[in-house]
Amino acid sequence: MDRLDHQLRFVAEAGRLKAVLRQTVLTGPGLDRPENSAEHSWHLAVMALVLAEHAPPGTDLGRVTGMVLIHDLVEIDAGDLFAYADQELQERQEIAERAAAERIFALLPAEQGSVLRHLWEEFMARQSPEAKFARALDRLQPMLENLSAGGGTWTRHGVTADKVLAKVALIEDGSHSLGNLARAVVRQAVAAGFLAPAPA
Amino acid sequence: MDRLDHQLRFVAEAGRLKAVLRQTVLTGPGLDRPENSAEHSWHLAVMALVLAEHAPPGTDLGRVTGMVLIHDLVEIDAGDLFAYADQELQERQEIAERAAAERIFALLPAEQGSVLRHLWEEFMARQSPEAKFARALDRLQPMLENLSAGGGTWTRHGVTADKVLAKVALIEDGSHSLGNLARAVVRQAVAAGFLAPAPA
Repeated sequence: MDRLDHQLRFVAEAGRLKAVLRQTVLTGPGLDRPENSAEHSWHLAVMALVLAEHAPPGTDLGRVTGMVLIHDLVEIDAGDLFAYADQELQERQEIAERAAAERIFALLPAEQGSVLRHLWEEFMARQSPEAKFARALDRLQPMLENLSAGGGTWTRHGVTADKVLAKVALIEDGSHSLGNLARAVVRQAVAAGFLAPAPA
Repeated sequence: MDRLDHQLRFVAEAGRLKAVLRQTVLTGPGLDRPENSAEHSWHLAVMALVLAEHAPPGTDLGRVTGMVLIHDLVEIDAGDLFAYADQELQERQEIAERAAAERIFALLPAEQGSVLRHLWEEFMARQSPEAKFARALDRLQPMLENLSAGGGTWTRHGVTADKVLAKVALIEDGSHSLGNLARAVVRQAVAAGFLAPAPA
């Protein structure tokens, strides 16, 4: 097989992300169905384009876009895990995602697979400004969906404001202004009764 | 409203692209449903990332990615039109898409809306190497889906190889190697009986 054949196998395999369903339920005309991880990744890339100015100065937005486009490919094998899953589930998920990365990025020509694999590792490690901003977008998008859905997964899973605010720290870490926004979203959601303030 | 409020309105509006269904039917485990334009746009952005080396030297891949991410937003108002629709329908579609661009990009802060509007115009005009490559990906992706679906929209709409080859010229125009690939896809599809060679 030549390079292009390998690249096409990867492109076809990536398409399977359209079958991975998330906890987020999309609302609005023609929707009212779970979001899939491919369209979620697209929405994050549009956010990276439009909210670029909220990243710290010097952030490489091309890398951010690359990260959000590929960050969920591992879910083709590992599935999506709800952000508020318990510690044990999260550890099991990380093992499954590492095995998936091993398999999926290896479909590409070796040096190209290695570049994308490292981009995914960078996203996971959340150390670089690019990874921190990408992770902030990944946390923020379902919050915006939940607010516009009148509660969404928060209501369905009985998530409380204190749990959401703990995640907001990750958004703040990637972008000061998006961190402020996320706190305002929590306040609005509590005021509207979409989000319980604290465990009963 | 401040800048961020405008940007968030645009991000929320963009999310409606997840409700726009295309002619392409996705196949495979957990699929067998029409593709939506948001996940289609994501797939094109992944292709831009992975097939970058098949663009002419000097092509700005960041612009290509931006174009494919936003190219279908006008369908939120105008809907998706099948690539083989007749001339009159295509002209009506173009008018609807221009009106949609006017409305949707105006949700953003003015100068930012203008930048994205110009990026969309550039994609439509198909003059720059970036627009030609982006359009090539947009043509190639449904061909790959049809081949893996055993005919897909070709079979369903009785499209013949001569019509598909006429579109392949647009792919060739954006990328020599992807043009060759597209011709190979047509040959394979004809050989497999997925695509009728010419009108009966």
